[in-house]
Amino acid sequence: MKTQIELARDGIISRQMEQVAADENFNPEIIRTRVAAGEIVIPCNPNRTNQKVVGIGTGLRTKINASIGTSSDICSIENEVQKAIAIEEEGADTLMELSAGGNLDKVRQEVLKAVNLPVGNVPLYQAFKETGRKYNDPSKLDPEFLFDLIERQLSDGLSFMAIHCGINQYTIERLRKQGFRYGGLASKGGTFMVAWMDATGKENPLYEQFDRVCTLMKKYDAVLSLGNGIRAGAIHDSHDRAQMAEMIINCELAELGREQGCQMMVEGPGHVPLDEIQANIILEKRMSGNAPYYVLGPIPADTGAGYDHITSAIGAASSTWHGADLICYITPAEHLALPTEADVREGVRATKLAVRIGDIAKYPDRRENERLASMARRDMRWDDLEQHLLFPDIARKTRASRAPEDGGTCTMCGDFCAMKKGNEIFKDDIKNDKIAPGA
Amino acid sequence: MKTQIELARDGIISRQMEQVAADENFNPEIIRTRVAAGEIVIPCNPNRTNQKVVGIGTGLRTKINASIGTSSDICSIENEVQKAIAIEEEGADTLMELSAGGNLDKVRQEVLKAVNLPVGNVPLYQAFKETGRKYNDPSKLDPEFLFDLIERQLSDGLSFMAIHCGINQYTIERLRKQGFRYGGLASKGGTFMVAWMDATGKENPLYEQFDRVCTLMKKYDAVLSLGNGIRAGAIHDSHDRAQMAEMIINCELAELGREQGCQMMVEGPGHVPLDEIQANIILEKRMSGNAPYYVLGPIPADTGAGYDHITSAIGAASSTWHGADLICYITPAEHLALPTEADVREGVRATKLAVRIGDIAKYPDRRENERLASMARRDMRWDDLEQHLLFPDIARKTRASRAPEDGGTCTMCGDFCAMKKGNEIFKDDIKNDKIAPGA
Repeated sequence: MKTQIELARDGIISRQMEQVAADENFNPEIIRTRVAAGEIVIPCNPNRTNQKVVGIGTGLRTKINASIGTSSDICSIENEVQKAIAIEEEGADTLMELSAGGNLDKVRQEVLKAVNLPVGNVPLYQAFKETGRKYNDPSKLDPEFLFDLIERQLSDGLSFMAIHCGINQYTIERLRKQGFRYGGLASKGGTFMVAWMDATGKENPLYEQFDRVCTLMKKYDAVLSLGNGIRAGAIHDSHDRAQMAEMIINCELAELGREQGCQMMVEGPGHVPLDEIQANIILEKRMSGNAPYYVLGPIPADTGAGYDHITSAIGAASSTWHGADLICYITPAEHLALPTEADVREGVRATKLAVRIGDIAKYPDRRENERLASMARRDMRWDDLEQHLLFPDIARKTRASRAPEDGGTCTMCGDFCAMKKGNEIFKDDIKNDKIAPGA
Repeated sequence: MKTQIELARDGIISRQMEQVAADENFNPEIIRTRVAAGEIVIPCNPNRTNQKVVGIGTGLRTKINASIGTSSDICSIENEVQKAIAIEEEGADTLMELSAGGNLDKVRQEVLKAVNLPVGNVPLYQAFKETGRKYNDPSKLDPEFLFDLIERQLSDGLSFMAIHCGINQYTIERLRKQGFRYGGLASKGGTFMVAWMDATGKENPLYEQFDRVCTLMKKYDAVLSLGNGIRAGAIHDSHDRAQMAEMIINCELAELGREQGCQMMVEGPGHVPLDEIQANIILEKRMSGNAPYYVLGPIPADTGAGYDHITSAIGAASSTWHGADLICYITPAEHLALPTEADVREGVRATKLAVRIGDIAKYPDRRENERLASMARRDMRWDDLEQHLLFPDIARKTRASRAPEDGGTCTMCGDFCAMKKGNEIFKDDIKNDKIAPGA
């Protein structure tokens, strides 16, 4: 079987490329050339039937990932399946199944059955958890077990994986020479791999045997997302030397993997202050040759716990604007506890809004929806307005909960409505549509 | 009585300037020179006893305003007082009392009694509402009644007022020549003034008799915030010619008012896409000679209704970063209904977080709090961490609602905690504080 990138390079427009082109109003040939260049990826494991086709990368609508998963403390497959369904309902584009408690094969399989979204994971979680259970020491991880596990997980139908190939002994040396971090280490897979390398003195097998990782991914046409294992967990660590050393290798591997015909993404931070977000995106795009960039927000403050879905939304709007292609949501429970279903819903909503705001800035020629919404609001066509809102049900409910006397207005201003008054004064001036006069 | 700006120009450091300097760790002389230059304002009507002193402007922590007020549809003084108290509890810096329903003198007076925050309003609301009640036509507004009303309101203890002095017939001509707006008009005071000018054919008395407005404001040392009456209500109208024509006049009046010894601010939009926010701030700062800029978000999308506190937070983080000095919150009810107490609490919280994120970017040398929070998180000192969080009670409650087995971690990762593992590996490397080694 050929991967999407291999097909594209052979000049073939696959069913998936056709679908992405149709969904996003592109000429299929443009999608093909960008897939061939590795600027667009389409996660689509053939073992997964009925999976939604989603394109991620240059020129496309910025996508949203939402993650779920058990922990050793809270471990209910039923809850995680319910969260996965809620995430799909709320309109996320991809899902990561990141369980680290209970029966890890079973939760993955149940989640894969419950949704149509492309599902990804971080194989190191199960690798270290099961090794820990067996030997009471995750550093006893056998690389052969890890590679077998990756294949087993892929065969279940995962369409992308965050794998920490970019951490090597050279990067760990940078971390030690740096001698300091305000926020320590924040990536679970990355940190446990560093611990393994520290305990064994060996090179990271995912780095050393990178070609083998690519071969596995290619077999299932899964997208390899190069994990950000050294990402900053504090804005004071943002863009420190250790993190940049890993980014260089991840970008190098993105190119090497692409050359082998594997679909590649790079994963980004993490905690980054607002004034450094643009630079972060530029670096990834430049060093990787425009590999799709999957960013975890970023989170531009360390002190928002309880409202970190908003912290992250603020970072995500900016990263989206400057070129991030896939944004991982953050829930209000981040930094505090395992999220509930209500938390994951809030997380998806905040991220949807952030990505919409970022895309408005990223693609100034695609503001059609805002234009139609504004005119409907101006003309007090509430039903039309709802068609264009991101959260029509919530908006309708809020307005109805405090209904106005005059159905054209709302209870915020009642009979003192600027919109209504403005329409009266300028009825001969302010009307119709300047951009599309016939519309 | 001399105003703060007059005192500062006489070389006097007032009690209020001392207080601002102490609160924000500045040398009082720096505060004095910035007040003298009109770059910092301190709203402080002497008729108001026990008012909190708040400085707004260059170099200071970016401040948050929260607005309340009745409408013709929902009109309970008790509710508005309760919201005002909630807003003060949540940590807003100023309050605007924007009632447009019921007994407008009484609600203002009750709110002024209920809180210690500086309180502002928009005098045109009461002016047009009471004229409308009397003559069944707000355009019968008598300018003499308006000026008397402004003084009556000021004598109650208001410390700042948004007054729409910058709208003139020239600007309305720009609006008509433009012939089109996607979002119509969004400012209540501004739109009803435009209607008055349209009906009477006269010049805006607040523009024509600007010196008289300044004289009134000076008498109570209130800050004159030049209202953004032509602001865009849709991102497609952002920075249109009509809006910029008003901004030019508002910035001109900021300078003229300052020269007369009146404390001045300029009010900004409104709906502005993310990629235009920085330009908006630069223009205001440049054209006004760095008058404090009071921005209503801005709101970088037209379609977030139901979650517009987050839409606005995303805009506010950016406007704060680029130099806005006072940010008006938006509640989840914006564009839909009069906010409840729960809505105003959410609005203040989202804005606090946005302004924190913006200030981190605006003042890279003032990230102390994030630094201490990060180290506490890294070292699993949860009690210390809480001291530095913006929402300690909410964070504590979330964590406790799903308590971990190991008190050092949380239920997100349980025994698979990156922070804990990282601390083990790098215990000799990652420790203490690089910036302040002795701390």
